[in-house]
Amino acid sequence: MYYTDKKLQFPVRVEKPNPVFARALQQAIGGVEGEIRVCLQYFFQAWGARGPAKYRDMLLSTATEELGHIEMLATAVALNLENAPLSVQEDVSNDAIGGSVLNGMNMRHILSTGLAALPENCNGVPFNASHVYASGNMAADMMANVTAESSGRVLAVRLYNMTDDPGMKEMLSFLIARDTMHQQQWLAAIEDMGGLSASLPIPNSFPQEKEYQDMSYTFINTFVEGLAPAEGRWSEGKSLDGKADFRLMPGQPMGQEPKLSPPRPDSGAQSEQMKKGVL
Amino acid sequence: MYYTDKKLQFPVRVEKPNPVFARALQQAIGGVEGEIRVCLQYFFQAWGARGPAKYRDMLLSTATEELGHIEMLATAVALNLENAPLSVQEDVSNDAIGGSVLNGMNMRHILSTGLAALPENCNGVPFNASHVYASGNMAADMMANVTAESSGRVLAVRLYNMTDDPGMKEMLSFLIARDTMHQQQWLAAIEDMGGLSASLPIPNSFPQEKEYQDMSYTFINTFVEGLAPAEGRWSEGKSLDGKADFRLMPGQPMGQEPKLSPPRPDSGAQSEQMKKGVL
Amino acid sequence: MYYTDKKLQFPVRVEKPNPVFARALQQAIGGVEGEIRVCLQYFFQAWGARGPAKYRDMLLSTATEELGHIEMLATAVALNLENAPLSVQEDVSNDAIGGSVLNGMNMRHILSTGLAALPENCNGVPFNASHVYASGNMAADMMANVTAESSGRVLAVRLYNMTDDPGMKEMLSFLIARDTMHQQQWLAAIEDMGGLSASLPIPNSFPQEKEYQDMSYTFINTFVEGLAPAEGRWSEGKSLDGKADFRLMPGQPMGQEPKLSPPRPDSGAQSEQMKKGVL
Amino acid sequence: MYYTDKKLQFPVRVEKPNPVFARALQQAIGGVEGEIRVCLQYFFQAWGARGPAKYRDMLLSTATEELGHIEMLATAVALNLENAPLSVQEDVSNDAIGGSVLNGMNMRHILSTGLAALPENCNGVPFNASHVYASGNMAADMMANVTAESSGRVLAVRLYNMTDDPGMKEMLSFLIARDTMHQQQWLAAIEDMGGLSASLPIPNSFPQEKEYQDMSYTFINTFVEGLAPAEGRWSEGKSLDGKADFRLMPGQPMGQEPKLSPPRPDSGAQSEQMKKGVL
Amino acid sequence: MYYTDKKLQFPVRVEKPNPVFARALQQAIGGVEGEIRVCLQYFFQAWGARGPAKYRDMLLSTATEELGHIEMLATAVALNLENAPLSVQEDVSNDAIGGSVLNGMNMRHILSTGLAALPENCNGVPFNASHVYASGNMAADMMANVTAESSGRVLAVRLYNMTDDPGMKEMLSFLIARDTMHQQQWLAAIEDMGGLSASLPIPNSFPQEKEYQDMSYTFINTFVEGLAPAEGRWSEGKSLDGKADFRLMPGQPMGQEPKLSPPRPDSGAQSEQMKKGVL
Amino acid sequence: MYYTDKKLQFPVRVEKPNPVFARALQQAIGGVEGEIRVCLQYFFQAWGARGPAKYRDMLLSTATEELGHIEMLATAVALNLENAPLSVQEDVSNDAIGGSVLNGMNMRHILSTGLAALPENCNGVPFNASHVYASGNMAADMMANVTAESSGRVLAVRLYNMTDDPGMKEMLSFLIARDTMHQQQWLAAIEDMGGLSASLPIPNSFPQEKEYQDMSYTFINTFVEGLAPAEGRWSEGKSLDGKADFRLMPGQPMGQEPKLSPPRPDSGAQSEQMKKGVL
Repeated sequence: MYYTDKKLQFPVRVEKPNPVFARALQQAIGGVEGEIRVCLQYFFQAWGARGPAKYRDMLLSTATEELGHIEMLATAVALNLENAPLSVQEDVSNDAIGGSVLNGMNMRHILSTGLAALPENCNGVPFNASHVYASGNMAADMMANVTAESSGRVLAVRLYNMTDDPGMKEMLSFLIARDTMHQQQWLAAIEDMGGLSASLPIPNSFPQEKEYQDMSYTFINTFVEGLAPAEGRWSEGKSLDGKADFRLMPGQPMGQEPKLSPPRPDSGAQSEQMKKGVL
Repeated sequence: MYYTDKKLQFPVRVEKPNPVFARALQQAIGGVEGEIRVCLQYFFQAWGARGPAKYRDMLLSTATEELGHIEMLATAVALNLENAPLSVQEDVSNDAIGGSVLNGMNMRHILSTGLAALPENCNGVPFNASHVYASGNMAADMMANVTAESSGRVLAVRLYNMTDDPGMKEMLSFLIARDTMHQQQWLAAIEDMGGLSASLPIPNSFPQEKEYQDMSYTFINTFVEGLAPAEGRWSEGKSLDGKADFRLMPGQPMGQEPKLSPPRPDSGAQSEQMKKGVL
Repeated sequence: MYYTDKKLQFPVRVEKPNPVFARALQQAIGGVEGEIRVCLQYFFQAWGARGPAKYRDMLLSTATEELGHIEMLATAVALNLENAPLSVQEDVSNDAIGGSVLNGMNMRHILSTGLAALPENCNGVPFNASHVYASGNMAADMMANVTAESSGRVLAVRLYNMTDDPGMKEMLSFLIARDTMHQQQWLAAIEDMGGLSASLPIPNSFPQEKEYQDMSYTFINTFVEGLAPAEGRWSEGKSLDGKADFRLMPGQPMGQEPKLSPPRPDSGAQSEQMKKGVL
Repeated sequence: MYYTDKKLQFPVRVEKPNPVFARALQQAIGGVEGEIRVCLQYFFQAWGARGPAKYRDMLLSTATEELGHIEMLATAVALNLENAPLSVQEDVSNDAIGGSVLNGMNMRHILSTGLAALPENCNGVPFNASHVYASGNMAADMMANVTAESSGRVLAVRLYNMTDDPGMKEMLSFLIARDTMHQQQWLAAIEDMGGLSASLPIPNSFPQEKEYQDMSYTFINTFVEGLAPAEGRWSEGKSLDGKADFRLMPGQPMGQEPKLSPPRPDSGAQSEQMKKGVL
Repeated sequence: MYYTDKKLQFPVRVEKPNPVFARALQQAIGGVEGEIRVCLQYFFQAWGARGPAKYRDMLLSTATEELGHIEMLATAVALNLENAPLSVQEDVSNDAIGGSVLNGMNMRHILSTGLAALPENCNGVPFNASHVYASGNMAADMMANVTAESSGRVLAVRLYNMTDDPGMKEMLSFLIARDTMHQQQWLAAIEDMGGLSASLPIPNSFPQEKEYQDMSYTFINTFVEGLAPAEGRWSEGKSLDGKADFRLMPGQPMGQEPKLSPPRPDSGAQSEQMKKGVL
Repeated sequence: MYYTDKKLQFPVRVEKPNPVFARALQQAIGGVEGEIRVCLQYFFQAWGARGPAKYRDMLLSTATEELGHIEMLATAVALNLENAPLSVQEDVSNDAIGGSVLNGMNMRHILSTGLAALPENCNGVPFNASHVYASGNMAADMMANVTAESSGRVLAVRLYNMTDDPGMKEMLSFLIARDTMHQQQWLAAIEDMGGLSASLPIPNSFPQEKEYQDMSYTFINTFVEGLAPAEGRWSEGKSLDGKADFRLMPGQPMGQEPKLSPPRPDSGAQSEQMKKGVL
């Protein structure tokens, strides 16, 4: 069960409202790198967590924090929209040199919300919950979380660099710091489970002797003959789980041309596809 | 530019066609853990890669390999559908004890493709390219790729455990091995860039003195008073980038209640929202 | 079965074509507050209507009217696009002071339709039929319809205020009037079924003694201790169905911490999640 | 900012785990009638609320409650999946008479989550945030909320009737009671703003003399000549806002056939569309 | 403007209600091969038609017919659901040998509509209006329409073959006949515009001397060296527009390796991507 | 299996980078008329092809070519973004007359990719794989392919006309030429199967005596009485398959008003819908 104190986790203030920056901020709310995603992702991972309770608790605690980040950003969007033009006339008169603000806005900020945030990205695409990764495998989930916080911090940095508003920079500096911690936190959970090499390959509960081990530590080069392969740490040296050495192999088919049965009668194919004796 | 030899990377054979398993396999084609996603993801990362060419080349090489994995799985789906019922009558007569195969099928395998694969997941939801992560930050992308290969290997293991067909187990053992390698490979790329601690926090090009550093290595506990926080490796000890020590803090608001302006006339709100002097 | 007379229900004329306003109008075609949605919603409610025929007939009649509203708006979009720039060059030469019209357009109006309307919203997101609510419960459907016409009228008012074109204002004044009527109409259908209090709680066919009645008229306050709850008409006085008095209660858990079984072998989890004896 | 006590708002227990019912429960999590939707909807309405603070506070309080409902349902799904088959073999051996449980499952419950809930509906379609209605008009939002709680209660009643598990019935009886209250609550908010007739037409801030008033209280009959119109409370008597009398009118076009300009050169049309003098 | 006579275009009757076939029928309503798509497609083509009025009129006439097809299918779904199980208990008792009907149903037919149709496909995926093709080019649109009617007729044939209900077969035989006509009709429109060869390449208003004509009638073989190319009518003989002869060419790159600038500072990339002098 | 030579099929160069044109180009990557669609479409058609191998081989060969087209366009987008503004400040200072470039950009080109392409359309809507048509019927698929190449060429022509960059015009002239060939190619495949009239109606394997033949070559006019029907090649003369003569018929219902059973108890309807004896 959940509670609120109605206050923001960190102050949100906007000195120079900018409706186009409001559009940009939407990416941090409803984009794939955004806060709705991490909030729901950590909640669903927590609610479905099996095994030691401490991971569930940690996830639950941070999921609850993330809800407050959506709140901060939604507030920031609304404040950036305070003086946005509501009409073509207003837009023109506000801007003596003709660069239309309306052009750059998410029009739903006017038409659908009356100057408030939406659960959408910066292009107006609604958040889609298929981005909530909760696999039931704690290590896979932690990697997904590091990914989310990495792309989230990249996004926050780009927003920080995009704006010239001191209030917005301050709010983003806080969110960037939280992303720093959250990257650390999920990696620390992997440490807690024995570290990266013990965790690999994910899932580590599948006996590796069942996999086709010839290809487990082999970089396959698919460049056409004559081109040098893309060599690097991944094509030589010890593997990261310490179990083998990387090697490099040119790609070549081990299988044959696939062959399907001809279409069955009553399957809706063309007659020409069913003719016997045709190549 | 791209080329093909029409052959499969690895043999695909099905001894006991099972149309319900064909549905399950769709997750590995068009699911968020599937092969269309990694294929497009690695391609878009490669095509947009800025900086040292070797990462671009590696991505391009593996993206091209993944295309062949979609091909293998699409072939596996078609082979599992070879004898699927095309009608209610056929379904009933095939199954003396009444457990309908039709019930468990992706009906589009009959209605839309005439017994072939679809770019959909196991629930029939079409692949959506918002799952292609290509951030322009090489470390964030590598984490996204480890995540994709981790959830991909979890999925492949579950499919392996689900089926009793020797041909399918063999094909999956190959794909599982490739997922093992690909997890290694993307982590090796991070090694190549100096290792995880040098890479953190992602993006490492943003000066950390600009972030709100008080909160950069602090685990925030949002449990109500009286509950023990979720402690672990993430709440004490050296941080994983070696720059600080983790600490633990109870969550509390640093900001105030947010306050928006009242609605403007002509903004489509209700009159009652615009009344002056109301709380 | 359906028929047309090829004419518009109301005149549509545009004095000053404005391609950016064409983008805005798309919200009224393919947005969640728009006409495709109500048209399909009323049709599906009618086609699935069970019970007295008069509700089905009313729904069918108005659904058929709404089809004509999409037609009017699609015509309005096309007319607003008549002189839209087709190229960068044209855009620049049309606009001496540099405020680009192209910037503010739905580019698919050029690239995909050759200056005509799309079944999309103002951000270019295609209409998604999950917004068609047809529940099989006539009262729930009527509430959904009032909602659709309320948000639809809010939208139409905002479009009216946004434009300075007399023809567009005239067309929108007609659509606003129809939304007024349609709000009335669906509420009148509830009157026809005995009025709001008789209809509540929806569905009224479920015996209320089966619900957990202690909580049926209780406003739960989830603010942390020490904060005043949000009081109002909803926290005291007679309930709107006249069956009880509202009361106010601080939120507190009646259940315990949830506890799931540990992961099963072969379920794809990490080994660390399966260890016995771990917290 | 937000807090949790890790406990469930109401006990969740499952006596007879049923993986097919787990699929059904998903509709209450990620369906359009479900809890993710109301949770986000009330939050976004609160975060964007302009005008008197009490409505914002009420919305915030209930949004926070709804988060706990998602938690309850996610727990219920996981518990219903405890003994679900993970393989074809297990499925067959569990079920002597051949009715496959696998057939009726959301396969992602096995393949993607390892026996836990997803933010999807009962057909596996991910939640899409375009269903979050937050219009900036408090009355329109309250109608949307009544709609959500009406279709939500219809759904909960159907789930209650579908299951034979006493634990599940108990949990659903609680959720049904909360839906009863929430229907009341949002209608009470309209009372608080002066009642339904004062609120109509929504938005009530638009001067009705600007709308095309001839059509504001007129039921338009679109049945072909010779058919009796769908008469009822909506076609005669006082309107519900008391401002007029309903009347009935046969539909007929007031506009003309629409006429668009011929395609412009360079617009990508066919030559035949651009020929002069053609009809 | 539009009208209805409340009657079905063709009789719809169901002798043996089958809720699983109701699921299959959904593909013909909300699938990409279905009737919502063609209905909206022909309407949007008509409403945006530029050039000779007769094509607009034909499109409008048939779009209006298609609306009645959705109505027929929605009715067929509802009738197939008449006796569907509403509960686990009912399902088990109806089916002595254990093959669950519930397993094979679209559960939203119970949970969301109370036994009526949805604007979804057979997998429960809602119709998405991005499938409405209306390009502003009459020939391209006619090809899109032939495609829609081809895949639509393939689907209707598969449904016809799937069912054993005489009423359903009769209804489908009517829809199949209409699809026959509609395939003819759109091809006849191309005849009307001068025939296929005059229409090609679409759009025929673009001067072919501006295209890179070396490659306009050349089949490019992308098989690796040593494999025979896929030869056929497309690799030799007169082209179908009579303007050239087909020829066959092995694929080979005419461009170079693409080269992007290194990432800019403040663009959110990793430092390692920005290092000078690195390969 | 697949291979690459890292080179582009055709040179891609941009003389005047234009971030707004980069947005436009996205339609050719991730739009419904774009290259991801045809690439996946031809691959899935090939991988599921049943019947003569030559069609599968041709499809496979061209699918592989199309992959290189996505690569070209993704490169073109990245090059058009080279100097795009990363911040409000930069945007303003770059543009002396105030027409903001930021307004017209796909903001994810800054925020999500760091100046590279996305698998989205020009409005930022991600590619959705439901647009991949692979029906199992070779003629239906060929029609779908002609459609894709027709709308694709229309799009490419519009992009050609929109830009003033010589490099972009050159690249597009190549893609336009390939679209010319591909239109030819798929029609040639129909020739190869006996020509259009032998192929119709699609699927030609369904015995036409089972369809409701009275309506197979009849144009149904749904205009209200008194209006002239839309006559043309489709309403008179020989049908295109030579099997009949077209005829024209006014639309009229052959069926009756649909009638559904009243709602069942426990189905979640309102009591008023279940009352006996009500009309």
